[in-house]
Formats: sequence, C-alpha cells, structure tokens
Amino acid sequence: MSDFLDNLQTQYRHLGQLAQFSHACSTTPWLADNLAKHQRKLCDSLEQAIERSGLRDGMTISFHHAFREGDMVINRVVETLARLGFKNLTLASSSLMTCNDALIEPIRAGVISRIYTSGMRGKLADAISHGLMEEPVQIHSHGGRVKLLQDGELKIDVAFLGVPCSDEFGNANGSHGQSCCGSLGYAMVDARFARKVVLLTEALVPFPNLPASLVQDQVDYIVKVDQVGDPAKISVGAARVTSNPRELMIARSAAEVIEHSGYFVDGFSLQTGSGASSTACTRFMAEKMERRHIKARFALGGITGSIVDLHEKGLIDILLDTQSFDSQSAESLQHNPRHIEISTNVYANPAAKAACCDQLDIVILSALEIDVNFNVNVITGSDGVMRGASGGHCDVAAAANLTIVVAPLTRSRIPTVVRQVTTRVTPGESVDVLVTDQGIAVNPARPEVRRRLEEAGLEVLDIEQLYQRAVALTGEPRPIEFTSRIVGVVRYRDGSVIDVVRQVKEDD
Amino acid sequence: MSDFLDNLQTQYRHLGQLAQFSHACSTTPWLADNLAKHQRKLCDSLEQAIERSGLRDGMTISFHHAFREGDMVINRVVETLARLGFKNLTLASSSLMTCNDALIEPIRAGVISRIYTSGMRGKLADAISHGLMEEPVQIHSHGGRVKLLQDGELKIDVAFLGVPCSDEFGNANGSHGQSCCGSLGYAMVDARFARKVVLLTEALVPFPNLPASLVQDQVDYIVKVDQVGDPAKISVGAARVTSNPRELMIARSAAEVIEHSGYFVDGFSLQTGSGASSTACTRFMAEKMERRHIKARFALGGITGSIVDLHEKGLIDILLDTQSFDSQSAESLQHNPRHIEISTNVYANPAAKAACCDQLDIVILSALEIDVNFNVNVITGSDGVMRGASGGHCDVAAAANLTIVVAPLTRSRIPTVVRQVTTRVTPGESVDVLVTDQGIAVNPARPEVRRRLEEAGLEVLDIEQLYQRAVALTGEPRPIEFTSRIVGVVRYRDGSVIDVVRQVKEDD
Repeated sequence: MSDFLDNLQTQYRHLGQLAQFSHACSTTPWLADNLAKHQRKLCDSLEQAIERSGLRDGMTISFHHAFREGDMVINRVVETLARLGFKNLTLASSSLMTCNDALIEPIRAGVISRIYTSGMRGKLADAISHGLMEEPVQIHSHGGRVKLLQDGELKIDVAFLGVPCSDEFGNANGSHGQSCCGSLGYAMVDARFARKVVLLTEALVPFPNLPASLVQDQVDYIVKVDQVGDPAKISVGAARVTSNPRELMIARSAAEVIEHSGYFVDGFSLQTGSGASSTACTRFMAEKMERRHIKARFALGGITGSIVDLHEKGLIDILLDTQSFDSQSAESLQHNPRHIEISTNVYANPAAKAACCDQLDIVILSALEIDVNFNVNVITGSDGVMRGASGGHCDVAAAANLTIVVAPLTRSRIPTVVRQVTTRVTPGESVDVLVTDQGIAVNPARPEVRRRLEEAGLEVLDIEQLYQRAVALTGEPRPIEFTSRIVGVVRYRDGSVIDVVRQVKEDD
Repeated sequence: MSDFLDNLQTQYRHLGQLAQFSHACSTTPWLADNLAKHQRKLCDSLEQAIERSGLRDGMTISFHHAFREGDMVINRVVETLARLGFKNLTLASSSLMTCNDALIEPIRAGVISRIYTSGMRGKLADAISHGLMEEPVQIHSHGGRVKLLQDGELKIDVAFLGVPCSDEFGNANGSHGQSCCGSLGYAMVDARFARKVVLLTEALVPFPNLPASLVQDQVDYIVKVDQVGDPAKISVGAARVTSNPRELMIARSAAEVIEHSGYFVDGFSLQTGSGASSTACTRFMAEKMERRHIKARFALGGITGSIVDLHEKGLIDILLDTQSFDSQSAESLQHNPRHIEISTNVYANPAAKAACCDQLDIVILSALEIDVNFNVNVITGSDGVMRGASGGHCDVAAAANLTIVVAPLTRSRIPTVVRQVTTRVTPGESVDVLVTDQGIAVNPARPEVRRRLEEAGLEVLDIEQLYQRAVALTGEPRPIEFTSRIVGVVRYRDGSVIDVVRQVKEDD
C-alpha cells in the first residue's frame, strides 16, 4: 500500500514532507482507550493539574476576578504553588481585591515576583505602595490587558480559571450551578491566550454543558474543588440602592445632563458602573426614558441589577455583559436570552478588529480625583496609596460619544477636584462632562455639549470654579510625600505608559 | 510630564521598550472620526474589499460551503479575482459542489493553481479527475482541515464568507435574515484562522447583531451583496423522506442493529448523515426510543429536519450542529435554544484540545464502496472519477463507539462491497458494522457486537459472504483504467496520506 506515497513524492517533489497513514488513532491514542477518552483532562488534585500543566519557575500564571471579593481561587492556587516551592512567577490576574491580602506572604517569599493587574485594594495594595515588591506592578485597563496579551508582552503559561460548572471536556460557564459569578468575560480571554488552561470547577456535569462560555477546545485540565467563590461577595463595596442625599443629587444631575446632552435619543447605548451615583442615575434615567418613549439599544460592560431591571422593563433591548456585578445580574444572564456574555477582547481591546465600546453613546464613570484638565485618577487615594482599579475606565472614556464622570466635590474634607491628579489613568481629552454635587463642568473641547446643557437651563461651571469651590471647603491639601522609587506603572489601553506610582514615604 | 518615563527606565532598565503615552486615540484614530468609527469595515464593492484585504498572486483564499448547491459566493469571488487578473491562488473551500462548475475556466486560466477541499462533484470533479490541474487536489476531512490550519500547512490569507446578516462590526450569523444556511460551523474556523476576513452579507443590521456566530473581533471587511445563497438548494441531493424499498429495508435493519448493539441506552448520542437510509433510520429509531423510553443526550454533526423532529418531540435533548442540512434545520437553529452551533474545530479536529465526536456513541455513515477489510471509499465512483466528499466520515468513524456504514449491496449492477476500494478514505479499523439490503456484516475486531446482534436474533454474515453475493449479482466488475499520474491526495484526519486518486484514462 505504500507505493502511492513514493509515486506522489516522485511526481510532486514539494510534497516530500507528507507522511504515510499509519493507524486511525496514531495521533489520538485516547480513542483506543474508553477511560482516557472521557477522563484525559480530569485531575485528582490541584497539585496534579499544576504538575501536568508543565508550570515552572519564572513562568506566568493568570486568573479572572469575576467573583471579586468572593474569589476563592487566586489565594488557593498561589498558596499551593508556594507550598510546592515555585519561585519567581508573574501573577497576571485580571484584577486583585481586598480578599487577596493573603498574597503578601508569597510575594515576600519570592513565589510571585511580578504582577500585572487592573487594580489592587486593601493590605496588599498598601504593602505594594510601601515597597513590597522589587519590580513595579503593571496596571492595565481591561481592554489594554488583551492588547498586552495580543502583543506578546504578557504571555500566560498557565491560566487557573474558577467556574461553577464544567463537563469533562471543559465546556464551562459562570451562570449555572452553585456559586455563579455570571459572565466569564475576563476568563474567556485567558482561555484563548494561555498556553495551558486549568479549570477549577465546583461541579462536573454531563457533556455537553450549555452554554459553553469557555469552550472545550481551550481547556487542558480540569480539577473538581469544593468552592470557587462566594457569589454573595461579588457586590461587596458596590451599593445597590443609595439614600445618601449627595449621591442622589449627583445621580439626578447626571440624568439631566444625559437627557439634554444630545445623545438621549431612541436607540442610544449606555454603560454605567457599579457606584452608588451611577446606579441611582440609572433609575432616574428610567423615568425619563418611560416619559419620553426612548429605549436603549444596548447596555455594555459591567452589568448591575439596576440595569437588568431596565432590561426586564423593556427599556434596554440587549445587555452586553463582560462582568456581572451582582447576583441579580448573574441570574439574568442565565434566563434572559438577550443578556449576552462578551469577552473583554470584544468589549474594549483597542487592538481588536472591533471593540463594543466604540459603539457606546453614553458612559458614566467614577473618579477618585479629577483635575482641572479633566485627567482622572482611579488608582491612588489622597494619601498616595493604591486603592482602586483602572478597569474599563480609559477604554470606554476614549470610545464613548459622551463620557460623564460623577464624583462628590469633596470626600471627608479632601477635594476630589484637584489642580493635578496624583496619578493619571484616563487622559482629560477623553472626559466630556464632570457632574458633582456642587455643580457641572463641561470639557472646553465639547462646546456643543455645554451649549445644549445651558439651553436646557442647566447651570454649567468652568472646572476651575469647581476646583476653587472644593479648595474653599477643604483648604489646599498638603502634598503627598513620595520617595523617588517607582512601585507601579500605569499603562494606557494602547500599552504606553501614561503615569507611574511612587512609593509613599513611611510616617516618621 | 515625560520625566516619569526616564525615571522608570533608569530604575528598571529591562522596561526600556515601554513607550510614553501620546494621545488617547493614537492607536485608534477612528475614534476621533464619527464616520470612520462606524464605517471603517464597510466596503462599497467586492473589488474594494479585495483591494483592502491585501490579497496578492500566490496567496490562499477560503470559503465555507454551508449553502452547499445553493452557494453564490465561491464562483462570484473567483470570477471577480479572475477579472482583476489574479493568478496562482490556492483555493481552500471547506468543500466544493456541482454548483462550482464555473471554476473550471479560472483553473484553466491559472487563477487557481491549488485546491484544498473536502470533496468535489459534477463537471469540476470530472475535469480534475481527467487531469485539469497541474497540482493534485488535497482532499481533507472536516476535522482534518482544521488540523491543517493549526499545523500551518494551510494558511488562509483571505477568507470570503457569505452570511445572510451582519452588523457594521461583523457580528454575523446564518440563522437570521433572508437566505439562511443555519450553522456557520465551517466559517467559524476560517474566521478564526484567516489573516483577513471579508464578509459578504445580504443585510446590514443594527449593532449588536445576535447571535454572533462570527464575532466582530474576527472580521476585517464587510460588503453588502444582493444574495449569498439559495437556501432551497442546501438539501439538493439529500432525500428527506424515501419510499424506496431497498433504502427502507437498510434503514429498518440499521435501526435493529442500533437497538441491539449495546449502545442503545438512555442518554446515548448519535450522528446520522443526510442520506436517504440514514434519514429513514432516524424515524425507525424514534419508534424504538418512544417504545423503550430511551432518550438521546445529543445528536452531532450535520443536522437534518428528521433529527430536528426528534429534538422537538423531546427524544434528543441537544443538537450540536456544524452544518444545517436543510431549511428545517436552519429554522430550528434560530428558535430552539438547545440547538447549538459548533465549529468544525470543536466538532472533529483530532488536534483540538477536545472534539465532540469523541463523545459519540453511534454514527451512521454512507459509502460509495466498502471493501472486505471494511475500508470505505466516499470520494471516487465506480468509474474512478471523483464525485463525493471526505466530509466528517473518517473523523467520526475513528471516534464513535459504534460506526455503522449503510449502503445498498449493489448500485446499477455495480457492486458496493468490493475486494479492495478504489480509494481509501476511512480505514477499515474504524468501521464496526456494515448494513446492506442483503445482509449485515460485523468487523471481526468487534466480536462482542456480533454476539449481541446474533443473540437478538439478527443474522450476521461475514463481509466476504456479502462480497460474494454482490459479485454473484453483478459479475466481477472490469478494473478501472488509470494513468499513473496522481490528481488527488487523500489526507487522513491527522494529515497523513491515506491514499491517492489517479487520473482516469480517456475513452479511446
């Protein structure tokens, strides 16, 4: 039977690399072994999965943060790696939270040497701000993270992805099972780019598991674990309904800005964050939408229960969900067919062939600080310590037709509107309107927006006036004392360095 | 503001490649131009899309064949390329049909020099079998095609993919709009692997188009065209309901084999083709399933209306659809939430991290010829001319627990069961049972299956006996006369060469 290959390669010399057929299963040996056919990805323990993944010192591991403060995977895996003696790893989590304080020890012990993350909070952020790491943390946006992966600066060797359910092939989702986080928008990117993918799943369900948010052709190993996250803690820190009069004032004012901005027309699109003012603004907008018979085509990004309410009332047609911000949103993803899960690549990667944020009309974003040039800081607090996240802030600010920042003018007698932000995350050129409890300012680059608001009877101030009001209330804040040492690098969504974070000086 | 980058790179020399932030839109210039933001992928004409794709002589173009005999994209694009003067292209269509006769001229003119395809029919196949091309055609399976792409032997420069609907970003599907082909399982692979993707769409619909079978982050250019296919011709050649007594006899017999094979248990899985006997067998199985209260977990592969009927009766829980074989199936994909579209990578690529066919219990396949060693030919006719397709035949045969081949013992006084197949596509080791109108044979490698069938009272013959019966009916067929020149290379799913097709001798 082998004559034909000789003949072929005599007649067509350039086909010389083609091999002769040997056996049906020579490249798929598991097909000759019924146990292997079904169990070749299953591991008895996390330790076994780590071993089979080929992870070695110096490599890069990744995680998603869809469970936010309820995550039970990141610390567990890193502690296991520490116990197994791994050193010098790069930790690339889509973000880090207060629940990740347990990483301080493994960092100190040299298990983790480099970090890529959207943000940090709590004791971990505090320790890093005070010089815990030898290498500065790379802080990226959600869209920018995918570009770093696409460009190859960030190469994930092994992704450890927690899910509530998976089948034996690795078809998995976050919307069914015990501990649901909802959208796996972050994990979808890791599953696509990582060299090896390990799923930690609470339940092994029969093939084929639907929907397959993570798909079997992306998954290498599967470990069953007791719990991957606590869904009750997804929304920790995100107030669902506020009764704070300042926040309600900001929310009402932001809704008025939207109404008269020129972008509040039937078929518009919006993104809101999980902050109290944003959430309250959503409700004020709902009233205006009902009154004026305006419906939104889609809402994008992190999806909250408030947005789900509008969807279920028929006021928003489609939800494009990269992160479910609470359990109501996670449940909606399970049963609302027009509540769609999207990856952060499709959401906001500036180097993707298209990013959904480019279709956005209106986005409401928050700020720790905003300066008189509209630059926004969402990373460092007024003491210079890191306590926030870049998130999708600079991604959607750059892309949306109308970017509104909502913030109280002062917080605990510290001004939010400042002469120059401590750390620049989103450039002022991307911010169109600032709404505070003490007034509204419009970026001079958008005179037409200012004109529309004034024509509608809204009072619009110059941002310098807001700054002066803030300082009049609080006094000029004492400058933060930093050392010269750089502990964080703030990457703009295109990968460039937009600012750095310096180590704060110890109190004497 | 640029001091911080100097400081960073002084402190951390290995970060020297990082660039300074310049402007919010420096890598996304379209965000500063509202027209470009929405229209940067849209092309006025196919010619413009070709120009923007960067296609040059010698490159590889690809297509999907979901419209089968109703396709209106392949010929149109190749004719346009011919008119534009392109030469020496490789044509990588997931398959080719009788409707592609129009390719003969562009091949003769040197526009197309090489072909990768699952199969060929009609005048094109006839011309190639008679020596039309200088280079042999590479014939691959559906799963094997993805492996060729993954291994890099096949590199698609520009994929031209026809869809009934897309939005301006390229979110597209085959289940909504005017000319629906149903599943885009083939196109999903091209969209993933091609360097550039051009969509030809009948309708431009508002963003976001749901579902996004092809996703915006895979699509480069979009052209609106009048029609991409005729759905009525998808099922040409595939009989929906047969009244042919021989086919009904084979179907009834195959259903009995399945019933007693040991694999007909609650939760089993199946794949059937679009052939008349397969389709009829589906109906006989439905009766047995209802009578014995057995339900199937999933059906896989090409999905027919007959399979949809079983799904809608609740007899099959999930449909995993890589190709909708008729308009009933395409409609079902639109409205049945557990009718799921899967790529051919997930379906059957032996080098994927997992292939659904590995989960298959029972598959019913057809044959042009099957020999006494159970090797199957689905490519060449009894005259040695190509007139078929490799399809998923060798993929699912290798993977399923029970592979049944159904065929009439003879066709038009030509034996189907032969001493040695003209062309080997699927190796005999992958075939378990042959069901003909004149008896059943079981591969000697599966004695337990033979025993079960005999215990159930079915008569099982040796395949040699079936061969003798065939020859007794038709006489020993005259050997086909081939030249020594190789015109086709049959690739097994793992990429190896399992056989070649030689040029047939001209009649004197």
